[in-house]
Amino acid sequence: MSAAPKANPPIRTLLGPGPSPVSPRVLAALALPVVGHLDPKFLEIMDQSMAMLREVFQTKNRLALPMSGTGSAGMETCFVNLVEPGDAVLVGVNGVFGTRMVDVAQRCGAQVDTVEAEWGTALDAQKFKDALGKKQYKVAAVVHAETSTGVLQPLDDIAEMVRESGALLMVDTVTSLGGAPVRVDELGIDACYSGTQKCLGCPPGLSPVTFSERAVEVIRKRKTKVQSWYLDLSMIEKYWSSERIYHHTAPISMNYALHEALRIVLEEGLEKAWQRHRQVHETFVREMRKLELEPAVAESIRAPMINTVKVPEGVDDPKVRQRLYDDFDIEIGAGLGPLKGKTRR
Amino acid sequence: MSAAPKANPPIRTLLGPGPSPVSPRVLAALALPVVGHLDPKFLEIMDQSMAMLREVFQTKNRLALPMSGTGSAGMETCFVNLVEPGDAVLVGVNGVFGTRMVDVAQRCGAQVDTVEAEWGTALDAQKFKDALGKKQYKVAAVVHAETSTGVLQPLDDIAEMVRESGALLMVDTVTSLGGAPVRVDELGIDACYSGTQKCLGCPPGLSPVTFSERAVEVIRKRKTKVQSWYLDLSMIEKYWSSERIYHHTAPISMNYALHEALRIVLEEGLEKAWQRHRQVHETFVREMRKLELEPAVAESIRAPMINTVKVPEGVDDPKVRQRLYDDFDIEIGAGLGPLKGKTRR
Repeated sequence: MSAAPKANPPIRTLLGPGPSPVSPRVLAALALPVVGHLDPKFLEIMDQSMAMLREVFQTKNRLALPMSGTGSAGMETCFVNLVEPGDAVLVGVNGVFGTRMVDVAQRCGAQVDTVEAEWGTALDAQKFKDALGKKQYKVAAVVHAETSTGVLQPLDDIAEMVRESGALLMVDTVTSLGGAPVRVDELGIDACYSGTQKCLGCPPGLSPVTFSERAVEVIRKRKTKVQSWYLDLSMIEKYWSSERIYHHTAPISMNYALHEALRIVLEEGLEKAWQRHRQVHETFVREMRKLELEPAVAESIRAPMINTVKVPEGVDDPKVRQRLYDDFDIEIGAGLGPLKGKTRR
Repeated sequence: MSAAPKANPPIRTLLGPGPSPVSPRVLAALALPVVGHLDPKFLEIMDQSMAMLREVFQTKNRLALPMSGTGSAGMETCFVNLVEPGDAVLVGVNGVFGTRMVDVAQRCGAQVDTVEAEWGTALDAQKFKDALGKKQYKVAAVVHAETSTGVLQPLDDIAEMVRESGALLMVDTVTSLGGAPVRVDELGIDACYSGTQKCLGCPPGLSPVTFSERAVEVIRKRKTKVQSWYLDLSMIEKYWSSERIYHHTAPISMNYALHEALRIVLEEGLEKAWQRHRQVHETFVREMRKLELEPAVAESIRAPMINTVKVPEGVDDPKVRQRLYDDFDIEIGAGLGPLKGKTRR
């Protein structure tokens, strides 16, 4: 067999739920010379990225690093490290990613209970309180910005209740990080994961995570080994600390890209980045209404970085999305699960 | 905090055990425009990469695709998908990566037995036969090129015995793929994983894997869910087939890089690439001897793509490696485990 033709991907305007547009600066960083994963110059870049991640996560946690996989690997990192077989876990479910959390937690042997809400609405803090009152949970997990529905979950009340219950608080910020305040320390989030390909403006491939000292202590006191060798933080943290013990070969080029993407976020400033997402979102909703399109989520819980729009009656949505590809090189996303054919993202 | 300074990695000559030097063509592919993971143009690139991977793995297996993590994620993919709690697994151990296989298999709940050999020597086929005669194993696993020692394991006899025993044969080809014949179909390998950053000449970040139909059947008949959601092939194969069901967001840019790296391998031709590795290795050994340096591995089992050299008596090895960095921008690797301070790679 001969080699395939050279890849020639089109220049798309990425307006869907991710991957998001990537700055030419980040693309250029990807093409920087590859060095070894123990090269002193690469170790410097790692330290700088950790410091910048702490800033973006709004935390003083020592443990803040990019896992070598996409956002879902970050989700799995949080569960496999914190959960041992038989542990009780409470998950808020109002979309694809809450549903996925349940699946991942169960695969770790967790006893999972859920607090549910209709897709496209937010989780009710009172229901969370009720559930937390009935059982002692080791971990309570919620999604901050549900990419599948466009809901930005209010976190303050839930975080307070989880803290009071003594459970560890896990939050999915794959889509929110960099686009809205995440406030890891202020909310007392114990385990937080994100992705590079949303508001950080980096290609997909890494998953930034951060763990509180309390969560790290829970990992240290585990009775069983973490079921995933690849995602075992007790080993990975030794590579991302002064010990520099080899675990796996870090994805060098993706780490260059994340480093540059974080620089861009901090150069703009977090506050300004949040504001920009909010302003663009408001403009989008205003202009959308002029086209007689309706947002799919109530105003108070609309995620500014992921806009979901109702598909008008009688419109063939896949055809519209295909035409956006073909005629305008624009990508938007389809609705997922029960929202398939009903929303665009 | 302000943003870190711009990353400025040096141009190193990467002569260590990996990452290996990356062609400017591959670096340029990394910087191609990012498109979505369901973009029709990206799906074409995926199909082409699968076809090229089949060629490189020398297989007709349908399932040949890059997992979204580095080589160790490929190792874990093979174990988590094939092993269920209580399954008997036999692992050949003569270096870091055989040792890692044992750890990964145990984390899947496997009952692991080992066939061992001194680090720097090959596994003895007769010992494998003895072990296989004592118990019915579900999986027998060996490392083809042990990156930690520089041994290229002869596979023919072991493969035949494993086939006869009825066990599934798993082979680690992280370092060998592209640098020596891997012959997945000819040897009857059921599960094979590799890395992008060795003889494929791509940056680290993906792990090509291939599974035989027999192995896929074993996955389909599992009684329990695969313990890793992120590495669950029963879902991932639906994204890498005509169904195109979204699982996780593929690392787009890394997939461009692998696509280009595979094109380069096939343009050169597999046979020529193997020959080149063999010739360069022979020249290296010849020239090394002129410097009174000794290879650490016996001639018949020396891996052509990973040369290990004895550290001469009285030489401070870390100092030598640091000087290679500082004065020549050359990276070589240290010995690992019991070979630390005794070999260079």
